[in-house]
Amino acid sequence: MSAIPEAIPAAFVASTARLSDAVTRPLPASRKVYVQGSRPDLRVPMREVSQGPTRLANGSEENPPIPLYDTSGPYTDPAVAIDLLAGLPDLRGAWIAERDDTEPLSDLSSHFGRARRDDPALAHLRFAHLRTPRRARPGRQVTQMHYARQGIVTPEMEFVAIRENQRLDALRADPRYTPLLRQHPGQTFGASLPAQITPEFVRAEVARGRAIIPANINHPELEPMIIGRHFRTKINTNIGNSALGSSIAEEVEKMVWSTRWGGDTLMDLSTGSHIHETREWILRNAPVPIGTVPIYQALEKVDGRAEELTWEMFRDTLIEQAEQGVDYFTIHAGVLLRYVPLTAGRLTGIVSRGGSILAKWCLAHHQENFLYTHFREICEIMAAYDVAFSLGDGLRPGSIADANDAAQFAELETLGELTRIAWEQDVQVMIEGPGHVPLQMIRENVTKELQDCDEAPFYTLGPLVTDIAPAYDHITSGIGAANIGWYGTAMLCYVTPKEHLGLPDKQDVRDGIITYKIAAHAADLAKGLPGAQVRDNALSKARFEFRWEDQFNLALDPERARDYHDASMPHEAHKVAHFCSMCGPRFCSMQITQEIRDYAERQQQDAAAQTIAAGLQEKAAEFRAGGASIYREV
Amino acid sequence: MSAIPEAIPAAFVASTARLSDAVTRPLPASRKVYVQGSRPDLRVPMREVSQGPTRLANGSEENPPIPLYDTSGPYTDPAVAIDLLAGLPDLRGAWIAERDDTEPLSDLSSHFGRARRDDPALAHLRFAHLRTPRRARPGRQVTQMHYARQGIVTPEMEFVAIRENQRLDALRADPRYTPLLRQHPGQTFGASLPAQITPEFVRAEVARGRAIIPANINHPELEPMIIGRHFRTKINTNIGNSALGSSIAEEVEKMVWSTRWGGDTLMDLSTGSHIHETREWILRNAPVPIGTVPIYQALEKVDGRAEELTWEMFRDTLIEQAEQGVDYFTIHAGVLLRYVPLTAGRLTGIVSRGGSILAKWCLAHHQENFLYTHFREICEIMAAYDVAFSLGDGLRPGSIADANDAAQFAELETLGELTRIAWEQDVQVMIEGPGHVPLQMIRENVTKELQDCDEAPFYTLGPLVTDIAPAYDHITSGIGAANIGWYGTAMLCYVTPKEHLGLPDKQDVRDGIITYKIAAHAADLAKGLPGAQVRDNALSKARFEFRWEDQFNLALDPERARDYHDASMPHEAHKVAHFCSMCGPRFCSMQITQEIRDYAERQQQDAAAQTIAAGLQEKAAEFRAGGASIYREV
Repeated sequence: MSAIPEAIPAAFVASTARLSDAVTRPLPASRKVYVQGSRPDLRVPMREVSQGPTRLANGSEENPPIPLYDTSGPYTDPAVAIDLLAGLPDLRGAWIAERDDTEPLSDLSSHFGRARRDDPALAHLRFAHLRTPRRARPGRQVTQMHYARQGIVTPEMEFVAIRENQRLDALRADPRYTPLLRQHPGQTFGASLPAQITPEFVRAEVARGRAIIPANINHPELEPMIIGRHFRTKINTNIGNSALGSSIAEEVEKMVWSTRWGGDTLMDLSTGSHIHETREWILRNAPVPIGTVPIYQALEKVDGRAEELTWEMFRDTLIEQAEQGVDYFTIHAGVLLRYVPLTAGRLTGIVSRGGSILAKWCLAHHQENFLYTHFREICEIMAAYDVAFSLGDGLRPGSIADANDAAQFAELETLGELTRIAWEQDVQVMIEGPGHVPLQMIRENVTKELQDCDEAPFYTLGPLVTDIAPAYDHITSGIGAANIGWYGTAMLCYVTPKEHLGLPDKQDVRDGIITYKIAAHAADLAKGLPGAQVRDNALSKARFEFRWEDQFNLALDPERARDYHDASMPHEAHKVAHFCSMCGPRFCSMQITQEIRDYAERQQQDAAAQTIAAGLQEKAAEFRAGGASIYREV
Repeated sequence: MSAIPEAIPAAFVASTARLSDAVTRPLPASRKVYVQGSRPDLRVPMREVSQGPTRLANGSEENPPIPLYDTSGPYTDPAVAIDLLAGLPDLRGAWIAERDDTEPLSDLSSHFGRARRDDPALAHLRFAHLRTPRRARPGRQVTQMHYARQGIVTPEMEFVAIRENQRLDALRADPRYTPLLRQHPGQTFGASLPAQITPEFVRAEVARGRAIIPANINHPELEPMIIGRHFRTKINTNIGNSALGSSIAEEVEKMVWSTRWGGDTLMDLSTGSHIHETREWILRNAPVPIGTVPIYQALEKVDGRAEELTWEMFRDTLIEQAEQGVDYFTIHAGVLLRYVPLTAGRLTGIVSRGGSILAKWCLAHHQENFLYTHFREICEIMAAYDVAFSLGDGLRPGSIADANDAAQFAELETLGELTRIAWEQDVQVMIEGPGHVPLQMIRENVTKELQDCDEAPFYTLGPLVTDIAPAYDHITSGIGAANIGWYGTAMLCYVTPKEHLGLPDKQDVRDGIITYKIAAHAADLAKGLPGAQVRDNALSKARFEFRWEDQFNLALDPERARDYHDASMPHEAHKVAHFCSMCGPRFCSMQITQEIRDYAERQQQDAAAQTIAAGLQEKAAEFRAGGASIYREV
């Protein structure tokens, strides 16, 4: 194995320059707009795509700009100067401070965190502007769920409500959008999507536990977002170096890259060295919630020997990461000792890394999983920083053969039990799901999750609907993801083409994200999420009218759409061509349809003219029958 | 527009050499096997993938070879010498001749066909070994449907039955396959899949019209296959040059390329010049059924002016193509004059090329679609050569907004009426379907098609479940395809990444095919098609046991799976590594699971030993209680 190339600040200066080019340039025809909330420091970013006019026989007709949900943060705002060395602006700092229920700590609470901070050998790797972490004041609850249950609408909740609506109220009031607001009724499987999302609706959903707003008080840089089945379906991306690859600078760039294409949250799954420092760089520069699997780092600390894990060092790891600002933790507390033998007859055993670590620990000690026995203490820690649970499915199936089996569903029931314990302490919870599941067995997963876990949001990895396509598992899983999203999963964890084979590079990340944006959007259309069809309608209208530029610009991946078009028709003139390369210039169905439409219109006009003519003739006949005299006697 | 590069025989000699390399080499660890039918000339090809052994603590255990459905014809059989200039061997010639109901014609029946044959300017483009076409003897019916209804099991039907079964009977009888035969029950939406497909079942399905075997008597080179929802879900690929692109040699290579990756049928949608000659080259070298849309060529003949189309020249085109050997025709006979105005309010009008041509013709003439008014004559022609109908959905939706609308469903009802007319003449029929449909509206399409068209096989293009992802429409449509296949669609027409943007190149074709093989297989798993899960199980077992080579070899695309793996771990040693690049050498969930399994096994052994020990102790106690005397008094 070759040595891992380490990031140094100089590399970051260089990568800053790099980011400002391919990774951070605004998407074509797009500008960043901000919708003002109820207070000056509450401005919700969106991306607005401008459109060209429709050319008509006599003149032209304007097409209105289309507002799009935007996960890319300040990176795509030319008005913001990006400096990775300084981190992103502190968006939520004032909101958190105003609540007056947290306090800055005099020192880091984690032994490990302090050791890393004080190690001079790490100076060249360390993020320069470490903030003093905050924690809940003794006796105070600082989670979004706690506020929601108290009836408080936080700025985070208002931010989320504006963001989810995407100016739908304004679009409805503007006649230019009327043709674009056509939408088919959805099929919701028991979900109830409001026509308009209000801050109060957000509050009620968070209070009920049906949605979460992952937002650690130590990650004030993030733009709040919500995960719940009555909102837009979200996607998560994974990055992370391993012993085989990838420097800190590369991971930070992948994080920005992920937000550019639409990643709503991001998990840092690093398992190599310096994961503490990598995480700090990512958090300080991340506009999206960051999740981790703390057991991975804990395992690093015991040099890979699962049986040497202890509650004390795991606890220190939780605090270390919570004070850095991690927004949600995957905790595999449902892998119970008695469930482990249920996996022995499986085709592919335990494939979750966290699940296998804990199963090994349980067997080595003949004791119950320490995450389960210490679950209330874990809740206390997470409540003090508002870290949300992502209750891990350590026993998820790793193959079609093992789908929906006793081990998987036993763990799911335990996750339900743990959900209720977390909720007692106002800690936000989502539930992780599979994995590998054939199409006809997907819905059972959602039904059972909603039932067992009292409607806590479901967050699934795919699922892959077949095992036979390594190198295309973004697609095998994208099929499952669209379906499970439709049935009610709130967030879809992406899978890249390299799944099962290797580490994704930047293009794999992009392919994985776009595939999952497709799945999430297909689910939103299927559920009938209000306004979801506007983008489809606008793009299809552009396509039909040969507005090539608008078709590219409204696409999930405008750059690739343009590249593919240009591969067949590279000339600028073709961007306004009234044909496309599939049919060539002489013959085009859209061209013909336009002729039909014109023809039909002329026919209607003829018919109208005939009606008028007929009416006149009738009058004429009356006139003649009446004696053909201008002045009739009355 | 630059001139089209024309193919010349020299180019074909060159392309033959090329084909034998990347396009025709056998897939890794695969050999062509033939299953013998009831007569010496009935040998059904399959691909058999060999596997390496599982390494156990003490020694190793063999893994059996996996038989796979194989569409690649003789191209991947090293024992067959490929000569594109001569065409493929005449597989079905004897079967057709034996039936003694057809006759070789003294000359081509089509004016156009004769003119092309006799034009000396085309000599350099022409396939050298033109066969005299055959036609049904007067008064005889020569369709597979006719034989089926007479109770005759043709060699084609037996071939299909063996092919569909994929040696499942042999696998069931061989204990090495027992663990691989695990399968979840399916959900079939009213389909009834037999445990074993017999020739008689094939016959009954064809007689009922629920399945078709497209097999023109003038395309004896093809290996028979079946399209019906009680069989494996099939996929179709499209190729074809247009005025903008692609020579004859390229099209032939794309056809072979398509069969290599799993295309079950292929449509030649050429719209450029020399489409007669291109088609001849494709047919003579195609081991799969070939479909066309004859109206495209007819339009060429009137220089793109739809209003100048006539029944006479269309009829000549049908005969021209039927005598070349085209196996199925897309006929847009359901685009009725009265339906055309139903599309005027659509967001994207008529997007089917055939549909828009005929709509334009109807409006220009104020007459009913001549394909509808001459439908019985079309049936007569198709019956004389056993060309199957693919009744075109000329009014399919071109956007999410237009899905399942009045125009689409009105046409579908007319396709049902036409199906019954075709069946009166024993002509095989399948029905084309959309298009663009959101997830929640897909099932209605299948339900309505089965009802309106009396269960004739459904053949759909995707559908795309959203419009917003040009450059990724293989994926947007693959999601819809998997679902519509599950609901009962018999064949899925692929979509490539270039859809809506440009002409697919070879890699686009490959991406489109693999995506659709995923969708079709996901549908088969979901329906519970017997034996479908064997490949998933074998691949997952290989994955779990770190048999990397077997994982690659069993994949839908072994070459890309290997390439992606090697991008992270290029060394040969890593092919047998007990870890993968996602987790690195120190930490791997599959490794840990193996340890758990070993541990659990030791535990069981311990438990067994304890039971024995306890039993012995009990006996010992009894012994002591009994006086500890060896010889007890009785």
